[in-house]
Amino acid sequence: MSELRKDVVTGRWVIIASERSKRPDDFRPAASRAREDGATAFCPFCAGSEAKTPPEVSALRSPGTQPDTPGWRVRVVPNKFPALERGRPPSPPPKVLFPRLPGVGVHEVVIENPDHERELADLPADHVRDVLGVFRDRIRAIEEDLQYQYVQVFKNKGKEAGASLSHPHSQIVATPIVPKRVKEEIYGAERALRSFKDCVFCRTLEEEAKGERLVFENAGFRVIAPYASRVPFESTLFPIRHSPFFTDVSGKELDDLAAALKTILLRFKETLADPPYNLILHQAPHPALSSKTWPELGRSFHWHIEIFPVLTKVAGFEWGTGIYINPVPPETAAGFLRNAGPSA
Amino acid sequence: MSELRKDVVTGRWVIIASERSKRPDDFRPAASRAREDGATAFCPFCAGSEAKTPPEVSALRSPGTQPDTPGWRVRVVPNKFPALERGRPPSPPPKVLFPRLPGVGVHEVVIENPDHERELADLPADHVRDVLGVFRDRIRAIEEDLQYQYVQVFKNKGKEAGASLSHPHSQIVATPIVPKRVKEEIYGAERALRSFKDCVFCRTLEEEAKGERLVFENAGFRVIAPYASRVPFESTLFPIRHSPFFTDVSGKELDDLAAALKTILLRFKETLADPPYNLILHQAPHPALSSKTWPELGRSFHWHIEIFPVLTKVAGFEWGTGIYINPVPPETAAGFLRNAGPSA
Repeated sequence: MSELRKDVVTGRWVIIASERSKRPDDFRPAASRAREDGATAFCPFCAGSEAKTPPEVSALRSPGTQPDTPGWRVRVVPNKFPALERGRPPSPPPKVLFPRLPGVGVHEVVIENPDHERELADLPADHVRDVLGVFRDRIRAIEEDLQYQYVQVFKNKGKEAGASLSHPHSQIVATPIVPKRVKEEIYGAERALRSFKDCVFCRTLEEEAKGERLVFENAGFRVIAPYASRVPFESTLFPIRHSPFFTDVSGKELDDLAAALKTILLRFKETLADPPYNLILHQAPHPALSSKTWPELGRSFHWHIEIFPVLTKVAGFEWGTGIYINPVPPETAAGFLRNAGPSA
Repeated sequence: MSELRKDVVTGRWVIIASERSKRPDDFRPAASRAREDGATAFCPFCAGSEAKTPPEVSALRSPGTQPDTPGWRVRVVPNKFPALERGRPPSPPPKVLFPRLPGVGVHEVVIENPDHERELADLPADHVRDVLGVFRDRIRAIEEDLQYQYVQVFKNKGKEAGASLSHPHSQIVATPIVPKRVKEEIYGAERALRSFKDCVFCRTLEEEAKGERLVFENAGFRVIAPYASRVPFESTLFPIRHSPFFTDVSGKELDDLAAALKTILLRFKETLADPPYNLILHQAPHPALSSKTWPELGRSFHWHIEIFPVLTKVAGFEWGTGIYINPVPPETAAGFLRNAGPSA
């Protein structure tokens, strides 16, 4: 099992993932090329390779097909090399110089479709909706335990974005602590609620509705190039209806979200030649766990999806200061993306 | 001039660098290859190309040579495409939804040696010391103004680490605000001082002195693979003598630091096949600016240099949670680096 370790100065947690352990030779250029070739030749996520993954946790399947056989549209499996593993939730560590926790949590992979070559952007909108519905259902199922403090859904597309396998997939990780970045965003939203007397995300959505940073909108969602974008073409998908919890999303909202997501992905492809990207769901922790710590969370937080192409590198200045240098103003990025053509 | 923008939820600043402005085509693979070739063919940092940079700010030169001509060992020039530019320091922005400041600051390049092919690791220890001495002297000179709230020194080596030119160089950026990450570390160190009744870095240094995470030590410095390393082979260079300010460093300490830095760089080269890396100086803001906000800073903060090879990618999970998944335990990394041979 892996180990969670805390840096006592910054409060930052890391996962020391011994199951994924590597030696220096694994980082030499030749090793990295070999891994890539290997992934394409023996993909464990393709239809027909179901036995290469741990048994599936859930799947959307054609009637009459058996688990762990072909016939699925979307398939969820435990990660074979998990960063965190199911187990008894640990107590908080004592105040020592080197705090640690066992690596208890959940790490699942959502295989978005059986075909290696069909990226999320290439799927019909109703299939994208199915993937998003699976995210919602898996979060609900994992949160039922109340063992885990936070569920993070994310997607790494392309090697530059951190994907180790190229078959289209997303990941779900549940952690035994509320992550620092999540806390920061929640505390920040509560502070902003006090300043602006309103959900700061609702206020932003209103301000951006007709502005030069609006990329796309439909009945349920707006896609915005954020005012303080860290990286070129950073985009945020906001539900127009206020809610802290992605798990609250309605059927109609899933339709609109699928259309908005497919649109922004198509426009990345069109504008930026099929770039690698990261997708990150930002939602509040389960209310049973968070309502005591953050009593205003229901009013202050507003779930959203962040997505950005990986075009620049995180460099020394960003590591040292946390200040990102962005060579493309979001107004410029939104202009390109708004006029890039196809919508879902 | 560029613009600083603040995200009101997270308090995160970004620099929208219009001087470095790019269009979508600049991010296509062909454009990136062209830029790389161009950099090697017409390097503005090589000896004999002094006219291609803005006039030098300072240089270590052979007696009798003129500014902006050959004859230098280390040369400091303003960045031709600065992220921030000198000017009148702005007042703090009002509490609005979209706060901004003019991009006032300093952005200098330290060209470490005249020869394109000689990396920092390849320079004699006394030349490495000269580079470090230039860092100290430039920080002192910039801090004299008291216009800028923080001076960040960093180095990006290799394209994967964010370097846009391959000639060996470091950078110095002074910002009109104390960056969020710097504040976090200072507040964290003050909290740790209260918990441990001592500088937490001094305590760590003591604990690590004979431990499995010690990579190298000499009279003045210890190089440690930090307990909560975010990335494989992360290393920190700590001065053994407590001081919050790099500008306090003594001549003897510069000698020891140069030896420690050259050693860790040689061991990266040996163990990891000359990897790209980032180097980040962590120091306290100038005492005239920080002593009111952080009265205990003199006791709680301890300057250090962070350095790590770029072997993994920042992916969706890290972006969402701030939790890094590290596949090489620091104890393992330190073992490899400790036994990798050459020392300076």
